Amino acid sequence: MQPFTNAITNLFGIQYPIIQAGMVWCSGWELAVAVSEAGGLGLIGAGSMQPEVLRLHIQRCKAATNKPFGVNVPLLYSKIDQTLAVLADEQVKIVFTSAGNPKTWTAWLQEQGMTVVHVVSSVKFAKKSEDAGVNAVVAEGFEAGGHNGREETTTFCLIPAVRDAVHIPLLAAGGIATGRALLAAMVLGADGGQIGSRFAASLESSAHQNFKDKIVQTEEGDTELVMKQLTPVRLIKNDFYRAVKTAELQGANPETLQELLGKGRSKKGMFEGDMVTGELEIGQVAMQIKEILPAGEIVKQIWQEFLACQKIFLQKV
Amino acid sequence: MQPFTNAITNLFGIQYPIIQAGMVWCSGWELAVAVSEAGGLGLIGAGSMQPEVLRLHIQRCKAATNKPFGVNVPLLYSKIDQTLAVLADEQVKIVFTSAGNPKTWTAWLQEQGMTVVHVVSSVKFAKKSEDAGVNAVVAEGFEAGGHNGREETTTFCLIPAVRDAVHIPLLAAGGIATGRALLAAMVLGADGGQIGSRFAASLESSAHQNFKDKIVQTEEGDTELVMKQLTPVRLIKNDFYRAVKTAELQGANPETLQELLGKGRSKKGMFEGDMVTGELEIGQVAMQIKEILPAGEIVKQIWQEFLACQKIFLQKV
Repeated sequence: MQPFTNAITNLFGIQYPIIQAGMVWCSGWELAVAVSEAGGLGLIGAGSMQPEVLRLHIQRCKAATNKPFGVNVPLLYSKIDQTLAVLADEQVKIVFTSAGNPKTWTAWLQEQGMTVVHVVSSVKFAKKSEDAGVNAVVAEGFEAGGHNGREETTTFCLIPAVRDAVHIPLLAAGGIATGRALLAAMVLGADGGQIGSRFAASLESSAHQNFKDKIVQTEEGDTELVMKQLTPVRLIKNDFYRAVKTAELQGANPETLQELLGKGRSKKGMFEGDMVTGELEIGQVAMQIKEILPAGEIVKQIWQEFLACQKIFLQKV
Repeated sequence: MQPFTNAITNLFGIQYPIIQAGMVWCSGWELAVAVSEAGGLGLIGAGSMQPEVLRLHIQRCKAATNKPFGVNVPLLYSKIDQTLAVLADEQVKIVFTSAGNPKTWTAWLQEQGMTVVHVVSSVKFAKKSEDAGVNAVVAEGFEAGGHNGREETTTFCLIPAVRDAVHIPLLAAGGIATGRALLAAMVLGADGGQIGSRFAASLESSAHQNFKDKIVQTEEGDTELVMKQLTPVRLIKNDFYRAVKTAELQGANPETLQELLGKGRSKKGMFEGDMVTGELEIGQVAMQIKEILPAGEIVKQIWQEFLACQKIFLQKV
């Protein structure tokens, strides 16, 4: 069989168009290495790392694999200058930026030799990212975990619209945990998928075991996008979520929500394992995740499912 | 070329797995006939019709086409007994039921010779519908127009989960306006698609011209699912929407929302053309609808796109 190649595998020099999302508290060097070694693209999530912690993770990645890997950086992070300096110092080759203006850093990052991908949740920002010169975009639907867009556009509506609006390679995010969903996202116009929740629940994820177990138990209707007055975030429904929801139904303003959130809430939940009062960010697709597997095994499964689904589907139509 | 057949085309005796959703104020006999004549399945939307008005629409349908057509009936409608009696009297062959318990009427409808399809927005109710003996289900995602589910599960997450849970034929709804989206929905596990918004904006739709024009103008972020405390509904953002939203952000209870809604609000908007204070129900996918075409032309376009997309996609992977 011919090896699979397309705009995304060519851009990153990887085997399968499967990107492991950079996630706070879940995606350290071990997860990134496992995914990259299996033929996908692993990303270190810098959002929950001090610059020198990030440096350590990058160095461990470089020591553990010769395959391409990248780093996800939320551009609104307070120590953004130091973080990006670490990336340049360590000669990171691929960076996924999010939560900020792609115009500010893209050219500089590319001058340092990096391929730059920006995460968006709307057609408008996909176009702005293309104008800013990024090498690819991730379009993330309403069903995605963590922080996402105010327009609430779902993967099904977002991907074709972004595909029609930009010419650069496009990754779909939100709702993808299986090969079938990856294939559907590519039919809608994506060149590959960025997958978060499924890898958050992998063996190599740095999330607390309680959180991984919780993901596997998550069923239909167990997540909701809340805090739209502050920064929208999709959470598993626990006591913290209920406090937020109650406040929102009573007409809470952003300040009240900020106070409820406090500091370190996501670390408490996802990294320290407090399932009751911690912030638990996950995608709707958690309802389809039934077991905790090695990340490399997940990559292989997704790709096998992709090929099998393609075959079945072709027989059907 | 072999004619296309699958579980849905066989169930209804139609040419393409394209179902035109029964919609309040949009889908009278003219729309249903145009879709059925083109090889899809047209549905009369009984939700906005008195029983005797519905009878007239059914009679006109029977006079105008020998092709299969159906009727969508919201089961919570106050004159449900009379409405269903009209269906039986007029020997309607296909009924899509929604908004109610499928156990109450399915067996009786089938005894009258009808194929029964129930509309759901969750895996849980898909299973209940299968248990109630329906012949197929429509699974409707968060992005769909009009009233939909409290779990907010998107088409991308809902379809694979329902596919895994039930064995009866499955139609996807929410986010489908093109052949590419229909193909993606079928890759996710559906046997066909139910399409609303695109047909609401067709020549034969009975909606007011103002509403059709409004759909074509709708862009990303112009719709939102609101009134979750009452009955969730996706609306185009106008003055009525803003009044609802303001009330919700101030912590309005269901009674306040009911008062705001009042009576005849959807007729005022969609049928009488009041774009400012009327209720305008539409799907997120309206952002992709760019012109008002004859419904038969829409069916043909969708199917051609479906085949073309399949071909392109196969060359790509």
